[in-house]
Amino acid sequence: MKSISIIETGSYLPQQKITNEILEKSLNLAPGYIKQRTGIETRCYATEETIGEMAIQSVLAIKHKGIDLSNIDLIVVATTTPEVSMPGIANEIQKALAIKQGNCFDLLAGCNGFVTAFDLATSYLQTGRAKQALVIGVDRLSKVVDPEDIGTAIVLSDGAGAVLLQAGEEEKTYHSHIVSHYAHNEILVSEIGNYIQMEGKQVYKYAVTKTVRNLEELFSKCGCTHEEISYLIPHQSNQKIMQAIAKRLAISPEKIVQNIQTVGNTFCASIPIALDEMKQKGKLIPNEKIVLLGYGGGLNTGSILLTL
Amino acid sequence: MKSISIIETGSYLPQQKITNEILEKSLNLAPGYIKQRTGIETRCYATEETIGEMAIQSVLAIKHKGIDLSNIDLIVVATTTPEVSMPGIANEIQKALAIKQGNCFDLLAGCNGFVTAFDLATSYLQTGRAKQALVIGVDRLSKVVDPEDIGTAIVLSDGAGAVLLQAGEEEKTYHSHIVSHYAHNEILVSEIGNYIQMEGKQVYKYAVTKTVRNLEELFSKCGCTHEEISYLIPHQSNQKIMQAIAKRLAISPEKIVQNIQTVGNTFCASIPIALDEMKQKGKLIPNEKIVLLGYGGGLNTGSILLTL
Repeated sequence: MKSISIIETGSYLPQQKITNEILEKSLNLAPGYIKQRTGIETRCYATEETIGEMAIQSVLAIKHKGIDLSNIDLIVVATTTPEVSMPGIANEIQKALAIKQGNCFDLLAGCNGFVTAFDLATSYLQTGRAKQALVIGVDRLSKVVDPEDIGTAIVLSDGAGAVLLQAGEEEKTYHSHIVSHYAHNEILVSEIGNYIQMEGKQVYKYAVTKTVRNLEELFSKCGCTHEEISYLIPHQSNQKIMQAIAKRLAISPEKIVQNIQTVGNTFCASIPIALDEMKQKGKLIPNEKIVLLGYGGGLNTGSILLTL
Repeated sequence: MKSISIIETGSYLPQQKITNEILEKSLNLAPGYIKQRTGIETRCYATEETIGEMAIQSVLAIKHKGIDLSNIDLIVVATTTPEVSMPGIANEIQKALAIKQGNCFDLLAGCNGFVTAFDLATSYLQTGRAKQALVIGVDRLSKVVDPEDIGTAIVLSDGAGAVLLQAGEEEKTYHSHIVSHYAHNEILVSEIGNYIQMEGKQVYKYAVTKTVRNLEELFSKCGCTHEEISYLIPHQSNQKIMQAIAKRLAISPEKIVQNIQTVGNTFCASIPIALDEMKQKGKLIPNEKIVLLGYGGGLNTGSILLTL
């Protein structure tokens, strides 16, 4: 089977910044409440941008780095907030880039969607179904957040992130471990046309226990330890959840990538936006190992360990 | 890489039958108009059933044949009419069957969704990501059809179909060819919360030309001809489209599986419902070759040639 490499990354955040001050006033919360509870300082809300337009912008950010995207033969988009089911967001990206070949589709796998899409694209590259794949995570949560529901209104936000993957012949580590648990899947629900429903305390509990178990199983599967990895890039759900995961696994906090402070929780977009920040800071170093960790509604939990 | 086998099939059609007579009266059409234009005689509309419940029923039809589904480790659902984005329909199937492991997600790939999901599940089985997969196609189109739009109201209907796939070690032919073409993708659109928009004449034109080209490329890729296949199971969009495809490729009409007469066009569910009918009639014969052919919004066109 072929190996895979992350060639480039891109992301898009809407211009409209929503500070904690704005939300604390509208929700009648004490100043400092949101930062203390979630770690978030500010987040972005789309204004006129559709979800498709945000996804396209994240891919154009790759193109603007001078990368040739004309040979892409797979586009997979993960989201939880689809606005048009047909043509899909992936089809609209193909159109925006005028790509003349390939297979395009969108998937729904809760907040773990990007990890699912990344692993799926990898299986297409490994089996020769594709040679170059774009994997995009995008969500426009401001549209489905109940502005009076503190639990969701203070954390959820909008954004898009994209990763360009390529098949190769190098010897590289790649392991994925994605598991769905149906028990308690009523604690995080997004019914189309209604507000997102989240039972925060329950989500915290299962997010921590399921991800810790998932990572232990991933490391056991790979026959390696977290000491061999340079970074763990978790879904940016809440700073406390990420800190609890790090503590339980005894991973040093500086290995846990966090950008929730300025981005908020963008569901499917959170991992690729974080990857793009890392890429821009020179933190994605060839031959080093990283772990992507997704979790959320479904309940779906997924992790990928790969050599860069 | 592993081979794959279709182990079992199941399907679900709602009990409420909508005859041509009912639609011809409400749309003020001459008696016989619908049959003559589409080949459809009757179709089913869901009443109380959600899309998730229809999908579950199609899988329970497999279980009721005495098949053990407790070892399933991948559930993929294709649809164009999602009602809940999180947890997904696949997660709800896992819950209904109390399956304790595996990876569950839904995908959106237009009417070609089942072919995309089947090929994706195959890539998971080939690479060892899963050993037994359920692939489901489901749509509840009666909910998104404009009752005054003749072009869609006389063809679209509701249903679900499921296929159980298993990885194996046998030498078996498997080739897939799935292609998205962005040009003209405005001719078939499903915006969530609005009625489906379809430009019938344009869809007819592209459905025929794109599928004929896709099948020619598939056969060329496999190094075989349509004479070696026992059946071609096309997406059941319209009898005239299927007849035109058969004529252009000079495939004998009795090899083209058709059940649109009694099922209508169920988008993602049409191929697995047809496969289930074939299975029940003893037409899925080991070692014979069949072709699945999907096409629709995106524009996505896909075909799979496999040995049973």
